Amino acid sequence: MTSPISPLAPKSFPELPPVAGVQLSTCAANIHYAGRDDVMIAVVDSGSTVAGVFTQSLCPSAPVDWCRDALGRSEGNARAIVCNSGNANAFTGAAGDEAALHTAEAVASLLDCSPFEVHLASTGVIGERLREERLLVSLDSSVASLVSSAPEGWKAAANAIRTTDTFAKGSSAPVEGTKGKVVGIAKGSGMIAPDMATMLSFVFTDLAITAPLLQQCLAAAVGGSFNRISVDTDTSTSDTVLLFATAASGDDPIANRDDPRLGKFQDALDDVCLDLAHQIVRDGEGAGKFVTVNVTGAADDEAAAAIAFSIGDSPLVKTALAASDANWGRIVMAVGKSGQAADRDSLAIWIGSEQCAEAGVMKADYDEERATLHLQQLEVELKVDVGVGNGSATIWTCDLTHGYIDINAGYRS
Amino acid sequence: MTSPISPLAPKSFPELPPVAGVQLSTCAANIHYAGRDDVMIAVVDSGSTVAGVFTQSLCPSAPVDWCRDALGRSEGNARAIVCNSGNANAFTGAAGDEAALHTAEAVASLLDCSPFEVHLASTGVIGERLREERLLVSLDSSVASLVSSAPEGWKAAANAIRTTDTFAKGSSAPVEGTKGKVVGIAKGSGMIAPDMATMLSFVFTDLAITAPLLQQCLAAAVGGSFNRISVDTDTSTSDTVLLFATAASGDDPIANRDDPRLGKFQDALDDVCLDLAHQIVRDGEGAGKFVTVNVTGAADDEAAAAIAFSIGDSPLVKTALAASDANWGRIVMAVGKSGQAADRDSLAIWIGSEQCAEAGVMKADYDEERATLHLQQLEVELKVDVGVGNGSATIWTCDLTHGYIDINAGYRS
Repeated sequence: MTSPISPLAPKSFPELPPVAGVQLSTCAANIHYAGRDDVMIAVVDSGSTVAGVFTQSLCPSAPVDWCRDALGRSEGNARAIVCNSGNANAFTGAAGDEAALHTAEAVASLLDCSPFEVHLASTGVIGERLREERLLVSLDSSVASLVSSAPEGWKAAANAIRTTDTFAKGSSAPVEGTKGKVVGIAKGSGMIAPDMATMLSFVFTDLAITAPLLQQCLAAAVGGSFNRISVDTDTSTSDTVLLFATAASGDDPIANRDDPRLGKFQDALDDVCLDLAHQIVRDGEGAGKFVTVNVTGAADDEAAAAIAFSIGDSPLVKTALAASDANWGRIVMAVGKSGQAADRDSLAIWIGSEQCAEAGVMKADYDEERATLHLQQLEVELKVDVGVGNGSATIWTCDLTHGYIDINAGYRS
Repeated sequence: MTSPISPLAPKSFPELPPVAGVQLSTCAANIHYAGRDDVMIAVVDSGSTVAGVFTQSLCPSAPVDWCRDALGRSEGNARAIVCNSGNANAFTGAAGDEAALHTAEAVASLLDCSPFEVHLASTGVIGERLREERLLVSLDSSVASLVSSAPEGWKAAANAIRTTDTFAKGSSAPVEGTKGKVVGIAKGSGMIAPDMATMLSFVFTDLAITAPLLQQCLAAAVGGSFNRISVDTDTSTSDTVLLFATAASGDDPIANRDDPRLGKFQDALDDVCLDLAHQIVRDGEGAGKFVTVNVTGAADDEAAAAIAFSIGDSPLVKTALAASDANWGRIVMAVGKSGQAADRDSLAIWIGSEQCAEAGVMKADYDEERATLHLQQLEVELKVDVGVGNGSATIWTCDLTHGYIDINAGYRS
């Protein structure tokens, strides 16, 4: 938390509106960090539904195992999410599972609900036992001091879940044609890779949406946002996105997929998830540049995404971007190693609006100075057409700098 | 070439014996580098056979395309390998293919052989047109000044093919039960990943071995050496390993796979390839530590290798190693993201001989100080048992340091 704020950070935390049916609280449980709030609890009204998407890691944390199980057992009903920062409760064996169970039971007792309606998330160091007793002690006072989700509540919640994040992350969007809205917070910086790498995001709406529809909307939103970003290819054991619908907006429930309001909700959810995903990239450990990689002309969209990640994840591409070096040969290398179909002799490459290569060779009037000028900005764009089909994809990443080494060679100290 | 010599480098270039039937020459063609030899030619006696293994990149360089084609057309007969450093002749379109053809034709004319008996390799910047005229001019004098492959010849050849390498790489081994030997040189530092990432190696034996047997031996040797190392996961467009057999040792030809001498040859070839592969890791860009990753208990050997690479390629593991930080939680993370079967609750992890974790939790008597002491050495070892089967694999990699960023944010300058 001592790193300077990322140069790519938004100017300030956004003004997030309250969401009817959501109450928040944070406290300092001293689980790992001293002198700061490290526990966040959000309580949603009785009757709320929930959806979740989790890490693809085969060594998931105890809270991830808990949430997956609870989602099924509660039939998509939920009352709370409790999140602590500083300790991931991952690779902690049976003791970790018990800590998760005890936490859910304690909150369930305070809220008079089923433990399976209590969701959990933990983020921080892996392999160290969670100081469960400190977390449990904090829950009583947290639940006693719940406040409505007014702007300051959101900001405090977004701050409490930070680890190496240099700024708090939040976003909101109204749902057109309803009284409802979508509000989300997130954390994440290093260890961000496709398929839900190290990040947490909790998203809330005051609309009434059935759990199956909610799950379907969340999966779609995550596919186009959190699963399209990468910082360092590493994937955490703890990644979790949870979406809660409180049914407190006063709108009629949305219970079938033909309801036109569902499309408007999806739009708002997509906007919030993409904004949060971009904020996570902007807080990539050591990031100096926000990088958009566009791939077109691939065999299909999946192949395009694989090529885009091959470019965006390449350490050689990322270090060239850090140096504002228009070394487009490294982009060719990354396309070649992706394993996806590409026609070398049709390949076209752009750095910003400057076309470097066409038909598999350097473009005759390519002006490296213009490309370099583009790369000297904080927001840069690479575009590649691989010349074999109509598949396309966009991913977002950051450059690889000395800052990344500094942060990750000293994380636990 | 201005980087200090890697701290992991061998003390000196080895004393390599001459290989009967191999003549060498180097010269300064000023293709990219000034004031140093940048072209190497090795001429082998008439009647020599050849085998080759090449990059998996789908955007291969012109020389790689040339060699693949020539191997088939020459039916495994060869007379020469020409290698230039500084320009990879990759992503250079039809002009690149023509430069390759002209080079092979020029050498073929000097040696009075087929162009398809002339193999080519280029390493360096991608996407810039090769200064073919400078290379062609150099060939006459190179061929005129060929010397036997005495120790100084090998060293000059190994130096001429360097790019960002901080030391020249060579290795040799006698073939038991014969008068023959195996001698190889290599280059490579950054952009080293499995499946023949950026590296070149030229290996010679004076035994007589048919081309099909030679190819089979080379594939096996590469599988256990060059394909088991990784520096930064990037894969080059130019990787090439060529193996020549000159038939000049005076031994009877080896023409069938039951010949017991073939096993002895394979042993020597394996030793040379593994030694060269380790030297490449020791010259990883910015490398401060030589890292061995052992995985056991996987579903099969292939799964074990995938897990080992997931660990060895993880930026978070590599930065922890750079800092001598015994953060074994990052190893758990890397196992989890590998996508391979692993039993979280059977996982066991060692740093050197210190066991950190067993049965999915931190070992009760784990002593972090002992693990840290191990990591403070120049050669470190990680071992993981994933508890699901009998598959095992070993890979070699290096740590990720500020040096990597320094080198790769300024490669072209």
